[in-house]
Amino acid sequence: MTLAIAAAQLGPIARTDTRADVVPRLIALLEQAHAQAVAFVVFPEMALTTFFPRWLIEPGPELDSWFETSMPSAATQPLFDAARRLGIGFYLGYCEKTPEGVPYNSSILVAPDGAIIGRYRKIHVPGTSEPIPGIPFQHLEKRYFRDGDLGFPVWDALGGRVGMAICNDRRWPETFRVMALRHADLVVLGYNSPAQLPDWPDQNEHRAFHHLAPMQAAAYQNGLWIVAAAKAGREEGVDMLAHSCIVAPTGSIVAQSYTFGDELVSARIDLALAGYFKSFHGLFTNRRPAHYAAIAAPTPREGAVP
Amino acid sequence: MTLAIAAAQLGPIARTDTRADVVPRLIALLEQAHAQAVAFVVFPEMALTTFFPRWLIEPGPELDSWFETSMPSAATQPLFDAARRLGIGFYLGYCEKTPEGVPYNSSILVAPDGAIIGRYRKIHVPGTSEPIPGIPFQHLEKRYFRDGDLGFPVWDALGGRVGMAICNDRRWPETFRVMALRHADLVVLGYNSPAQLPDWPDQNEHRAFHHLAPMQAAAYQNGLWIVAAAKAGREEGVDMLAHSCIVAPTGSIVAQSYTFGDELVSARIDLALAGYFKSFHGLFTNRRPAHYAAIAAPTPREGAVP
Repeated sequence: MTLAIAAAQLGPIARTDTRADVVPRLIALLEQAHAQAVAFVVFPEMALTTFFPRWLIEPGPELDSWFETSMPSAATQPLFDAARRLGIGFYLGYCEKTPEGVPYNSSILVAPDGAIIGRYRKIHVPGTSEPIPGIPFQHLEKRYFRDGDLGFPVWDALGGRVGMAICNDRRWPETFRVMALRHADLVVLGYNSPAQLPDWPDQNEHRAFHHLAPMQAAAYQNGLWIVAAAKAGREEGVDMLAHSCIVAPTGSIVAQSYTFGDELVSARIDLALAGYFKSFHGLFTNRRPAHYAAIAAPTPREGAVP
Repeated sequence: MTLAIAAAQLGPIARTDTRADVVPRLIALLEQAHAQAVAFVVFPEMALTTFFPRWLIEPGPELDSWFETSMPSAATQPLFDAARRLGIGFYLGYCEKTPEGVPYNSSILVAPDGAIIGRYRKIHVPGTSEPIPGIPFQHLEKRYFRDGDLGFPVWDALGGRVGMAICNDRRWPETFRVMALRHADLVVLGYNSPAQLPDWPDQNEHRAFHHLAPMQAAAYQNGLWIVAAAKAGREEGVDMLAHSCIVAPTGSIVAQSYTFGDELVSARIDLALAGYFKSFHGLFTNRRPAHYAAIAAPTPREGAVP
């Protein structure tokens, strides 16, 4: 049994764009997905707004404007309505502010009937809390978001088990390993990664490779399908990494974006392949957790060896 | 400060070859390394013999003949003498039988003065204990070797911190992560991997990719240099994966074998790059071990979710 799935890459979103500008773009991608009989669509991280952590913004109405205090909201209800009408489930990344006022970089898993069946809050929040002087743009995620507090859950969905991650999480092998140990067949994620590093430009030529290689290795090592959706193109003067892709448990990239704008990247995938690779590695029989204690241990004080 | 290092790939070793046939080949590679001013050489897993776990061998003199009961032994002393004379350190994989008779798939780290400064015993022993009927060759490592019991230590050596792994260990992200958390700059490993899978030939075209991608991702994610040395070529009717290589903390393959025989693959590497990547990821500051508990937990019973 195959599953038709897609990454819905988004081109740039301007600082002045509102939800009313963006939501119709998401719905247009859902319509494309429907025309291809796609059952599930993965939108990027922070898919409703520009990547605002590139600026220092003081607390106040502008900062509040980047967050959603409910989901769906009046502005996003049309997306949920369209998905239900078309019978398509989706992953959506957005900035969440809880009723208590706690900010998270979050994502939701939405069933084809429009019900929110899963929620994830980004665990590996990158960047800094304070601006770095003298660089062309900032990455102030640590200023604006609390660390995710929901772990790495996995849900029964799409005929298998599905987990979520967000952006920098994909560079941490623990992200995929924990979900694989919970029998995930598929991990979906969105990202907003600059194509150039403001503070280490030497590495710019590796940016796409550093995005793809960890996911390809993780897909193979964990027996997972991975669908990754970019915010791409030149957004407010910053080139964003595109390379939206679908990675098989072989590690092969079976579909990849080729534009820097709104683009649907789809494939028909076989979730059973995930299980074959888990068995091949003996994921549950050949692991030797007695020797992995350092990974789950608190960071030792400077100089100490776990 | 750069370090000149090499993988010493070996071509096939016949079932009838003795240590007296093999050790001179290792010494010839050390001589080549010396001519290139190489300071450290990585030999393969099980570098002194053929890969005997492809056969079912009953306990007795032939099985005993594949193991070393002391190191150095009379047969391997010339290798240690040559290394000391040339001032080259090395990693050597071999089959160890302890004084108590316990068999391990082991490696040693030898200083340029010939002193054994580190010992590792393979933790992720692959294959089966019993032959699989109807396949062209066996992989009976689980029959012949006990799981390694020494963890993943890291040693001060070569101007940095050095860890060891063996073959299948490289497919497990935990291997590299644990050593990186112990501040490894360099992981050296040998392998004997068949280029074709007797029990899943569909995956044969991915064999080199499945060897390289996990090491490239691990080098990048952990801020590590990795040197990997193959037993290559057609050994007793089985094609062995070559692709000996040196991988930088960028994930780039900076040197790779191009033959299927004895071949020295060398590079001058800068261990400091390992630290830059550890800092870039915030390996010690951005990790969130509270969410990694499942990785170090015992395997749950069937169907349970950790």
